[in-house]
Amino acid sequence: MIIILRSGVTPDQVDHVVKRVEELGLRAHLSQGTYRTIIGVIGDEEQLRSEPLRAIPGVMDVIPVLPPYKLASKEAHPQPSVVDVAGVKIGGGKLAMIAGPCAVEDQDRMRSIARAIRAAGANILRGGAYKPRTSPYAFQGLGEEGLQVLREVGDEFGMPVVTEVTDPRCVEVVAEYADMIQVGARNMQNFVLLTEVGRTRKPVLLKRGMSATVNDLLMSAEYVLSQGNSQVVLCERGVKGFDTATRNLYDVASVAVVKGLSHLPMIVDPSHATGRPELIPPCALAGIAVGADGVHVEVHDCPEKAKSDGPQALLPHEYAELATQISRLAALFGRSIAPLPGAETCDAR
Amino acid sequence: MIIILRSGVTPDQVDHVVKRVEELGLRAHLSQGTYRTIIGVIGDEEQLRSEPLRAIPGVMDVIPVLPPYKLASKEAHPQPSVVDVAGVKIGGGKLAMIAGPCAVEDQDRMRSIARAIRAAGANILRGGAYKPRTSPYAFQGLGEEGLQVLREVGDEFGMPVVTEVTDPRCVEVVAEYADMIQVGARNMQNFVLLTEVGRTRKPVLLKRGMSATVNDLLMSAEYVLSQGNSQVVLCERGVKGFDTATRNLYDVASVAVVKGLSHLPMIVDPSHATGRPELIPPCALAGIAVGADGVHVEVHDCPEKAKSDGPQALLPHEYAELATQISRLAALFGRSIAPLPGAETCDAR
Amino acid sequence: MIIILRSGVTPDQVDHVVKRVEELGLRAHLSQGTYRTIIGVIGDEEQLRSEPLRAIPGVMDVIPVLPPYKLASKEAHPQPSVVDVAGVKIGGGKLAMIAGPCAVEDQDRMRSIARAIRAAGANILRGGAYKPRTSPYAFQGLGEEGLQVLREVGDEFGMPVVTEVTDPRCVEVVAEYADMIQVGARNMQNFVLLTEVGRTRKPVLLKRGMSATVNDLLMSAEYVLSQGNSQVVLCERGVKGFDTATRNLYDVASVAVVKGLSHLPMIVDPSHATGRPELIPPCALAGIAVGADGVHVEVHDCPEKAKSDGPQALLPHEYAELATQISRLAALFGRSIAPLPGAETCDAR
Amino acid sequence: MIIILRSGVTPDQVDHVVKRVEELGLRAHLSQGTYRTIIGVIGDEEQLRSEPLRAIPGVMDVIPVLPPYKLASKEAHPQPSVVDVAGVKIGGGKLAMIAGPCAVEDQDRMRSIARAIRAAGANILRGGAYKPRTSPYAFQGLGEEGLQVLREVGDEFGMPVVTEVTDPRCVEVVAEYADMIQVGARNMQNFVLLTEVGRTRKPVLLKRGMSATVNDLLMSAEYVLSQGNSQVVLCERGVKGFDTATRNLYDVASVAVVKGLSHLPMIVDPSHATGRPELIPPCALAGIAVGADGVHVEVHDCPEKAKSDGPQALLPHEYAELATQISRLAALFGRSIAPLPGAETCDAR
Repeated sequence: MIIILRSGVTPDQVDHVVKRVEELGLRAHLSQGTYRTIIGVIGDEEQLRSEPLRAIPGVMDVIPVLPPYKLASKEAHPQPSVVDVAGVKIGGGKLAMIAGPCAVEDQDRMRSIARAIRAAGANILRGGAYKPRTSPYAFQGLGEEGLQVLREVGDEFGMPVVTEVTDPRCVEVVAEYADMIQVGARNMQNFVLLTEVGRTRKPVLLKRGMSATVNDLLMSAEYVLSQGNSQVVLCERGVKGFDTATRNLYDVASVAVVKGLSHLPMIVDPSHATGRPELIPPCALAGIAVGADGVHVEVHDCPEKAKSDGPQALLPHEYAELATQISRLAALFGRSIAPLPGAETCDAR
Repeated sequence: MIIILRSGVTPDQVDHVVKRVEELGLRAHLSQGTYRTIIGVIGDEEQLRSEPLRAIPGVMDVIPVLPPYKLASKEAHPQPSVVDVAGVKIGGGKLAMIAGPCAVEDQDRMRSIARAIRAAGANILRGGAYKPRTSPYAFQGLGEEGLQVLREVGDEFGMPVVTEVTDPRCVEVVAEYADMIQVGARNMQNFVLLTEVGRTRKPVLLKRGMSATVNDLLMSAEYVLSQGNSQVVLCERGVKGFDTATRNLYDVASVAVVKGLSHLPMIVDPSHATGRPELIPPCALAGIAVGADGVHVEVHDCPEKAKSDGPQALLPHEYAELATQISRLAALFGRSIAPLPGAETCDAR
Repeated sequence: MIIILRSGVTPDQVDHVVKRVEELGLRAHLSQGTYRTIIGVIGDEEQLRSEPLRAIPGVMDVIPVLPPYKLASKEAHPQPSVVDVAGVKIGGGKLAMIAGPCAVEDQDRMRSIARAIRAAGANILRGGAYKPRTSPYAFQGLGEEGLQVLREVGDEFGMPVVTEVTDPRCVEVVAEYADMIQVGARNMQNFVLLTEVGRTRKPVLLKRGMSATVNDLLMSAEYVLSQGNSQVVLCERGVKGFDTATRNLYDVASVAVVKGLSHLPMIVDPSHATGRPELIPPCALAGIAVGADGVHVEVHDCPEKAKSDGPQALLPHEYAELATQISRLAALFGRSIAPLPGAETCDAR
Repeated sequence: MIIILRSGVTPDQVDHVVKRVEELGLRAHLSQGTYRTIIGVIGDEEQLRSEPLRAIPGVMDVIPVLPPYKLASKEAHPQPSVVDVAGVKIGGGKLAMIAGPCAVEDQDRMRSIARAIRAAGANILRGGAYKPRTSPYAFQGLGEEGLQVLREVGDEFGMPVVTEVTDPRCVEVVAEYADMIQVGARNMQNFVLLTEVGRTRKPVLLKRGMSATVNDLLMSAEYVLSQGNSQVVLCERGVKGFDTATRNLYDVASVAVVKGLSHLPMIVDPSHATGRPELIPPCALAGIAVGADGVHVEVHDCPEKAKSDGPQALLPHEYAELATQISRLAALFGRSIAPLPGAETCDAR
């Protein structure tokens, strides 16, 4: 921790700051510059992090030198983590291929989509049962009935399933049906939900919020990890931008930034990041090229009748073509699509 | 609703779009331009709003002409709403002066702050018992104990109290103690929480999310209103910006935008918007000048020992000076600080 | 300057950094923390500012402690500057009321607008002769003919005139006709133009760029000041934002930020900041309340026939009403509209 | 063009709008909806584009249906353009590999860098002679002397050269020395400069501004094209974002957006987009994967002594490794690095 004092700070103010630092069992090391005095704090920075030092008269700025997350940091775990989703192992060179409709609609539709994406190379089936919708008048999901459909279809096709939870009271039921629990972008800083999800032992897919920095994202992961659940996969899905040409601004570099700071796997979601089907394949490939551990894509076999987010879904044959390209691109970097449990290799060709 | 078709759209595709519109009981009115065909949809736009028309081949864009919120709109309620917080009536020319510490700490501190701000002119006492903190290792609030302290101190000084709820399971207990329930910026699109809060009959203070448009904010208010709770006060508290000179980017114009679209009162929170005490008074005044129905400010009598957000708190005497200026400024526009219940006029001079 | 070293930095790397610092005639003061070593540099920070210290192996971050601008800083000039625009003195409690059409169109229109705004209380007449237009096919301004019209109308009504320059080759001719030279938002970092404008002795109206931080704005002012021209007035006119409800995002707090850092006067331009006439009056008032030294507003007597930016212009009678409100609001803060040369007081009532 | 009228518009107002449309030789087609009347304008939209229709009483919104650029659009030129930079042909599957130091420093350094990057596979040499620097006190470039060095070194190694122009008065001299003229991000809307550059017959490298939408970028290209210069290469180099983890926010999807709208080649510049050397290789690869026509990277053999932007430069051996990966990645998509003039194929292996 570095404390920068204002010009014109009085000796009494300096003493007061030093005293506050020492009260916490740390040591203060003064460095008197030509224009400013700075204090280097020696000892465990965590002691000071939540102290409002910046509120002390004479203090201009307080600069931490360590990241505020611990369990999520590379220092804590230098090797890349591998997250096991019911046998599909994500990370360390193996890619998650998460696909499916935005919302679970009915069993027939779910089956036909699952069949198609499994054949294409997907290894985790997605579908929302509890939908966070901007409008209270929009379709809100089928609830537990949707979870049942998702589970049955996943079992039929031998695919693990992931679905979103939006209510801490539903974490238990979601964990009962799903192999992986998604926390959506709008809930990335719903700390109550993160805590509940952290208490389960299910893998968590944590999506980056639209105004979250990488640091914020890792702090939210820390909430889950600090509850004892170490199975977190991060996901970039676009941040808020000023250009309406895309739904959000796809921050592909965030994947490379996270790789330098954390051991957690990180995937990309070009469906929500761009909101336009023709942009999904190139942006998915960009995600793999930058180092992502997988791709999350919405697929629907009749987008114009989808109950949610139809305009941004890929058709099954478009997804199949994309999966083939992802597979080839990954190979170039010595990576591959994570095999389904029981399979020797993945299906994408 | 206007549907714009792509150049090169085929007659079959046009027919298909028209058929989809008519299936929903609406009429389609074609307008053949030199370069584009557009379809004006005649009838109740709501029928179409959640249909994924943009996913139909040949459709380039779909432009709604009505706002997606109804109960929050001026059309539904042309007069400005007045929200009654245990006798303090906000809106229609009367200002909310919400003040207090970020978090409830202990009864003595709470009493000394409450005494000071009441004397200064505050009419609602705030204090967090459940704190949404970026770090799982930071102080998370006193919980129900904090609610009790807040209630007791509010009663002692005859001030209604507002506090934040972050968990749908705590809405009931918060509603028991508080006169107004705050939904914070990070939970603005926590639709589960909005729905629970909408089921109470307590006034709601709904803060704008950091990446929320005005439209998003009004849609979140619609969640509360659609549950039958019409007592919503909106709050601008800064959006995410690129300049680190301030904590957030204070979008003061959003108040004027909302005034043109909605009947709901809207206040400003310059504490969170700027994050710097010296900017709070000028930004609070800017909020009143632009037409806000009140100001939410964090006040602490010893910021350097505050358990949360100390560096952005005003001292009681600074708040008193600000309240005096607000009172004078409001008078210029024919407005005034809402009196406490029982009082003839407000205390600020 | 503070240099933060990476964890795991070698003694040789530390020595190398220290050597580089000492080569520049400065002293390095090491502070060995538990997790990081930091180096406080003692001596003139300017020596180091443009050195790529962050490129040295082992260096994690380099944090300057002084602002990079000098002439624009409060340290250099603790009293607020007053800028004299042909007798209209802006700053130190006196407000600029700059008004007029976006573009100079013809003499009759210019005269009728000038007459109206002068009567309303404007003290500087604006009008563009060289228009920076997004489209090459849009009206680009009348050029020198426009300057002549502006000058003649300004003289007729006894008002100083301001107009934009976009080309370094036109600075001389613009300086010949105008009393104040505007550098627009899109040219805020056109350093060639800033340098040319700095070589004149005409007051400069420098508008903040759409993606410029306050620091960037002050650095651009420094370009003008460093050429010997000390007459700079800054202007907030909105930054790029994500909400399409307004044309730009009006960063009213930036005025208060600048007041803490610099002695230069700063005004606001709610016309460009919001792009919607109904938002201009409330946002202008917010600007005065936050401490701005004036308001820049576009006024046109027939917006639907304006050759540029018609949809965001106020009508003359709307401007008159606004000017009256500004005058009253300013009085509350002990400020007033700067009088025209020769006048005892301003005209607004 | 679609004109949406306000609810409550009077018949007289509707007539007035229709009359304005017809005065311009166009036809108005009314569509009376349940809540709103809309007018479809039939005829050449360009006639109306610069008319301030939105300023007419009763008009709520005006929505163009055609893009505002013509020469830059795919409609005007359905095939991808190939831009010839002194024999290096960019576009249509051939990649530009532009590399070199931020600023031209001295001949020896320039030669050693050029030798290394040519061996690595670069096909265009870059180096700034006129530097747009945020600070007036920073190194501003060597001017014409820098141009001479760049030209000589380019000739020695048989590489075309690109350099930035910042002053319309220098366009001629830059065009004399350089094979390609760069317009930097800060000058993307310096329309005077764009016009001058458009009058030359040299290829132009046009960088996207930090707050420019894709539409803005294409409009700036249109300035160059409308002067008769059809040789424009666009470049994504990051937009302004809120996360300080990277210097800018790398909007890789913009390349895919442009590919759907325009025939112009577009490259990426991960050096400026990220500002951190470790992020440059993954982000360069993401650019190629998304469909970019090349990569612009800053390379320096002693970053810690670079006169400009040292901390974001790659070392020559890092660049060589990246070029090899780019070459392999491009091959996967049937693309390849554009050969130098005279060479059969490129050098990267």
